Amino acid sequence: MSELKNDRFLRALMREPVDATPVWMMRQAGRYLPEYRASRAKAGSFMDLCMNPEMACEVTLQPLERYPLDAAILFSDILTIPDAMGLGLYFETGEGPRFKKTVTTAADVDALPIVNTLKDLPYVPDAVRTIRRELNGRVPLIGFSGSPWTLATYMVEGGSSKDFRKAKAMAYNEPELMKMLLDKLAISVTEYLNEQIKAGAQAVQIFDSWGGALAHDAYLEFSLAPMQKIVNGLIREHDGRKVPVIMFTKGGGQWLEPMAETGVDALGLDWTTPISGARSRVGHKVALQGNMDPSILYAKPDRIRAEVANILSDFGAGSGHVFNLGHGITPEVKPENAGAFIECVHELSRQYHLQD
Amino acid sequence: MSELKNDRFLRALMREPVDATPVWMMRQAGRYLPEYRASRAKAGSFMDLCMNPEMACEVTLQPLERYPLDAAILFSDILTIPDAMGLGLYFETGEGPRFKKTVTTAADVDALPIVNTLKDLPYVPDAVRTIRRELNGRVPLIGFSGSPWTLATYMVEGGSSKDFRKAKAMAYNEPELMKMLLDKLAISVTEYLNEQIKAGAQAVQIFDSWGGALAHDAYLEFSLAPMQKIVNGLIREHDGRKVPVIMFTKGGGQWLEPMAETGVDALGLDWTTPISGARSRVGHKVALQGNMDPSILYAKPDRIRAEVANILSDFGAGSGHVFNLGHGITPEVKPENAGAFIECVHELSRQYHLQD
Repeated sequence: MSELKNDRFLRALMREPVDATPVWMMRQAGRYLPEYRASRAKAGSFMDLCMNPEMACEVTLQPLERYPLDAAILFSDILTIPDAMGLGLYFETGEGPRFKKTVTTAADVDALPIVNTLKDLPYVPDAVRTIRRELNGRVPLIGFSGSPWTLATYMVEGGSSKDFRKAKAMAYNEPELMKMLLDKLAISVTEYLNEQIKAGAQAVQIFDSWGGALAHDAYLEFSLAPMQKIVNGLIREHDGRKVPVIMFTKGGGQWLEPMAETGVDALGLDWTTPISGARSRVGHKVALQGNMDPSILYAKPDRIRAEVANILSDFGAGSGHVFNLGHGITPEVKPENAGAFIECVHELSRQYHLQD
Repeated sequence: MSELKNDRFLRALMREPVDATPVWMMRQAGRYLPEYRASRAKAGSFMDLCMNPEMACEVTLQPLERYPLDAAILFSDILTIPDAMGLGLYFETGEGPRFKKTVTTAADVDALPIVNTLKDLPYVPDAVRTIRRELNGRVPLIGFSGSPWTLATYMVEGGSSKDFRKAKAMAYNEPELMKMLLDKLAISVTEYLNEQIKAGAQAVQIFDSWGGALAHDAYLEFSLAPMQKIVNGLIREHDGRKVPVIMFTKGGGQWLEPMAETGVDALGLDWTTPISGARSRVGHKVALQGNMDPSILYAKPDRIRAEVANILSDFGAGSGHVFNLGHGITPEVKPENAGAFIECVHELSRQYHLQD
């Protein structure tokens, strides 16, 4: 493997000194980029794009050609694991992801296999290897997975949901059944992320998109506990370097303390949590990633710049901050606004790292 | 006006002793009740139901016929004010509310009138008077309005939204324009709630459904500040009795301290905030209303009972708690589950009020 030329992102995750705050964007390879839309049209379906390592590599690198981003993230979908378990993932236009089979009964949960990544999802480590080769040490590559609770909601509901009625009913009425499902997912996700690490992912992020929809105790029981199992089982050092782990629960600002207790290296924040408050609560344990409202990217570059300045000043001096949006960038954002955002993070953050 | 026979709800909002924890449910007059669906079919459209004081009274009282609820809430819609401002509210099946006109430019904001409730929305105070007469002192009647920010999102977007792209772009790019709009709404909402109070509403709730979508500072500026203006202008005593004010920001658990500083009597909580934590943060200033996940009502009665017991024990002994769901009851809930919920709040809470 070639030497890493820009390690700001990994250093910030380890709370080591940096010259400027690193930045990347969730969903940075996505529909707001015309070149992405062209690749997507060429590939066929969204899953065709994910399952073709050369194409996945192509779109992963597209935002890096435009912007001085400090990390690449594997282009893939969070629902590869339930798909590999045999549920039959498909996408309906304008409807989001759907599954042909849903998980409703104990027999359904029993029938689910544990995922074997090399056998069931070989295209994922293949894509990781291809991207690492093409990145050639420019920036680190992030691997990722959905959290068990997040995956379970799609599997039980059969797709997206507004109120997670069926998944919550299973959790409340048949907690042992839900936990069997979450256990199978935690084991599968652990193995899946470890295969990404072995293939070359230099950091991993667990996306808990829907943990924030749970009540306080239910979050700890059904979302955080299975993520803890994953954290316990991850390869934390590979190829002579630590592999930092980022945990991101959207809407999770009220649970930062127990999240930081899991032993992850960094927590992702959405924009509802002030980063200064998060730093004073858990900054002695973990780095923080976030947390600009992606809707700010609809504003004029001056306003974007002012908001970046606010967040940098709110975090304050020293390392331990990876700048990001508080959720994925949306398709309607102008690419030049994303560029203005990324450039001013670097420019405005240097003053906070003079003592690093 | 006849004497109030059950004042548990008002006493708990003032943190005065009660014999049992009062309970009501947001959207308690709603589609989960077959008798509501029958009235709705008889009335024609949803707005026909809201605009007919006799019909609005009929559906307001329906849940009280079934359950020992401690409060009634005016049956109406949060979007009556923008409709009265001339935007043309309508509902498309399965699509939620829509407006014929949207508010985009300074000229649009300038053209919006301040609402005069008695002239523009006479059916609302009429419904309040009719319901008070029919309640005949059984329980208190709650009046309500949407918050300025929540109303503004619908007016700028033209309807519901997932990411509030247009409303946020206006707030970020043209903050003075957004504030002009919010000011007009704050003045209108204040007058609207005061007319409800004069007509007989014994408590009022401000529903801030979408403040929780804002970043920390933006919440204070665009959602809380206009709500503060309303609180400052409300009639706080009427007919010899205090009129308590409840402020509910869904997803607002991180802002309880500044919300409590506004001078309201109670804060509504959604289920992501543990009520014990909320009580220790702001319980010396305000009462708390909430906060069971409405999805618990999909579970079996035993599980509902266990969750009610958890929340009661989490709040602990003493007054200052109004039991409620953390959001509106959903159409798919079985009426008998709502009944089990309400009955066990009374039964299980008495032990916490022996010293009251």
